[in-house]
Amino acid sequence: MKADIITIGDEILIGQVVDTNSAFIAEELNSNGIQIRKIHSIPDLAGDITSTLDESIQSSDLVILTGGIGPTNDDITKKALASYFDSKLVVHEKSLEHIKKRFSGMKIELSDRNIKQAEVPEICEVLPNRNGSAPAMVFRKEDKIIISLPGVPFEMKTIVQEEVIPLLNKAFQLPVRIQKTVLTVGIPESTMADRLKSWEESLSSNLNFAYLPSPGLLRLRLSISGEDKKRMHKRLDDKTTELVQIIGEKHVFGFDKDTLAGVVGRLLNEKSLTLSVAESCTGGNIAHLVTSVPGSSVYFKGSVTAYANEIKTQIIGVKETDINSFGAVSEPVVQQMASGIKKIFKTDYSIATSGIAGPDGGTPEKPVGITWIAIGTPDKLISRKYLLGDHRERNITKASLIALNMLRNSLL
Amino acid sequence: MKADIITIGDEILIGQVVDTNSAFIAEELNSNGIQIRKIHSIPDLAGDITSTLDESIQSSDLVILTGGIGPTNDDITKKALASYFDSKLVVHEKSLEHIKKRFSGMKIELSDRNIKQAEVPEICEVLPNRNGSAPAMVFRKEDKIIISLPGVPFEMKTIVQEEVIPLLNKAFQLPVRIQKTVLTVGIPESTMADRLKSWEESLSSNLNFAYLPSPGLLRLRLSISGEDKKRMHKRLDDKTTELVQIIGEKHVFGFDKDTLAGVVGRLLNEKSLTLSVAESCTGGNIAHLVTSVPGSSVYFKGSVTAYANEIKTQIIGVKETDINSFGAVSEPVVQQMASGIKKIFKTDYSIATSGIAGPDGGTPEKPVGITWIAIGTPDKLISRKYLLGDHRERNITKASLIALNMLRNSLL
Repeated sequence: MKADIITIGDEILIGQVVDTNSAFIAEELNSNGIQIRKIHSIPDLAGDITSTLDESIQSSDLVILTGGIGPTNDDITKKALASYFDSKLVVHEKSLEHIKKRFSGMKIELSDRNIKQAEVPEICEVLPNRNGSAPAMVFRKEDKIIISLPGVPFEMKTIVQEEVIPLLNKAFQLPVRIQKTVLTVGIPESTMADRLKSWEESLSSNLNFAYLPSPGLLRLRLSISGEDKKRMHKRLDDKTTELVQIIGEKHVFGFDKDTLAGVVGRLLNEKSLTLSVAESCTGGNIAHLVTSVPGSSVYFKGSVTAYANEIKTQIIGVKETDINSFGAVSEPVVQQMASGIKKIFKTDYSIATSGIAGPDGGTPEKPVGITWIAIGTPDKLISRKYLLGDHRERNITKASLIALNMLRNSLL
Repeated sequence: MKADIITIGDEILIGQVVDTNSAFIAEELNSNGIQIRKIHSIPDLAGDITSTLDESIQSSDLVILTGGIGPTNDDITKKALASYFDSKLVVHEKSLEHIKKRFSGMKIELSDRNIKQAEVPEICEVLPNRNGSAPAMVFRKEDKIIISLPGVPFEMKTIVQEEVIPLLNKAFQLPVRIQKTVLTVGIPESTMADRLKSWEESLSSNLNFAYLPSPGLLRLRLSISGEDKKRMHKRLDDKTTELVQIIGEKHVFGFDKDTLAGVVGRLLNEKSLTLSVAESCTGGNIAHLVTSVPGSSVYFKGSVTAYANEIKTQIIGVKETDINSFGAVSEPVVQQMASGIKKIFKTDYSIATSGIAGPDGGTPEKPVGITWIAIGTPDKLISRKYLLGDHRERNITKASLIALNMLRNSLL
């Protein structure tokens, strides 16, 4: 069972908006066992719509189009579809009622433009759009299904989940496909690939494995297709367990939609522990990640960004003599930052960072990318040095994630 | 002059990642006078790569591919291209040197897999990738150009701007098109559109105007095409001046690639002034934005994230009685945070925030989204209340940008 997605709109082709609709639709279809063959983004041109539709119908069982059914002149998808299916546009009474109700609710007068939105090709089946004015349309051609949806993400999403997925489940015998993503930190993609080589080669053909890297993180996705859902879940769980064993729990921080800050927060919360942070090179980013988690105020007391050395000494209590002897980027300083903030903020755990984020400030002895990270726990201090790279933004991201993972490991 | 963009990767077709690469490339090409005919997203399958390439070459003068040239087994773009252009893979010595240098810098041992990254089809021209290991490749077929880029956004972006655009300007007679982006903060898109309506209607047809909204920011792009470069620059400058006058300098913080934190940093730097920050609801994000700017250590001394009330009182010196009487989210508290941090960190200016980022913690009197922001200057305190919305992440971003813009206006 294959599908094509066609997103329509000039704004996509000039790079003015990022097309997030196709990713949403792809995920919804994929998790219902429908494989996406191709995603097309095309301009608001009737010729492009019909030629892309032709190609898609030839290769796929299902085609989903989004966009180009709004009230303005550049929205021509509906006309193109009417001509493609050789059907005339007629007013859909139920949709007109719905539009009238919406506008009177918002105390806005109905214009001709709005009434025209209730027009659809006569042969289509209409799916209601409860968040907007443009009705969604379903066409059938032989055993293929073509669905045209509005491009406004929040209207489209509701229609997909409430109308399209049930319709597809009725129309097609959908295969079962389930997946699990293992989230890792601290191992580069190529090293990971070497470590997993023989395991990967041993996977059976109904199992699919993919590497999804992003700065500081590497996500590993396992997916399985088949018929017996219970057995598939069991097999996916077994393979996931193997994967975690090979990689090591130290580097696996979670699964699927987990975030590192969220996982750390859950651990702190469960154990009723508190956290403080003293940041130099990460400049506030660790505090930002920690506080991005809703409810973080329960365990996070606060942080100090100690960019100037005098803040390190006067606020966090780092010894000035140690900064002079070893430099601000050194093990003694990062350790004193971790123990100092823990004591002053009266928390159970603490994180501290000190490094050279770049692009300037490096020396032959301490190059750009050098980063000291320390974790303060109730009974000890852990500190480690990392060499990250030469890109400021990535160094900040990587150091923040490594630090959060060090904390996670201390909490386990 | 037309181009096709092909993004390659199974992760796009299962909806696991949103393809942001094609929007970036489309914008870059478009602003250089190249029209995008179609964007294709396809899986890591050799057959799909060659058939899509065939279709694209037939209809466009330029094809840009991204993705599938990493070190793992699922990256097969390079093999597919070698076979498409009937050329064998050979080690590109300069790329190998570059990879070796990168790895020795990070003290990681080079594996066979990494060495393989230096292999490219013999007939291609290599574009250096200074932020990564995978070299970019240029192929020529008759008068068409085909470019294969890495899929990692930050590697791809640098190659496009530093290598691809100059190459295209040499290879093709691109029409002259120049543009200017006006960066604004604090005015919603619909309000801005109303304010600019009559000005926009008065624009001549060779001028193009676009709204590019993102959370907390609104970029306005003016572009002009023509032949007489000098006259075009003059016209663009005149129109930009008009635009800034209508919007007001209070809301226009910069142009083109400026960032708000960068502009604020420049102002502080020029005047040899220093900054400290006390954050509650923004949770470290303002410090993070400020320190994202290279060289920020010159003017930024540091910050305190005061999530717990006891940090507000004990570290920043907010009066406990005021927190009890007015609540932590109140004008007296945010003012004391701004004056306290300025005094303790001995800086010329300060920023303070206190609000309810959500999703929980709101009350009928103080709903989610309420945010107090204060700016401490050498001779006064400025404070204002904002009602932002109900989305945690967006509230943090918006509050941070509004605060930085308040500081910018105090510095002018």
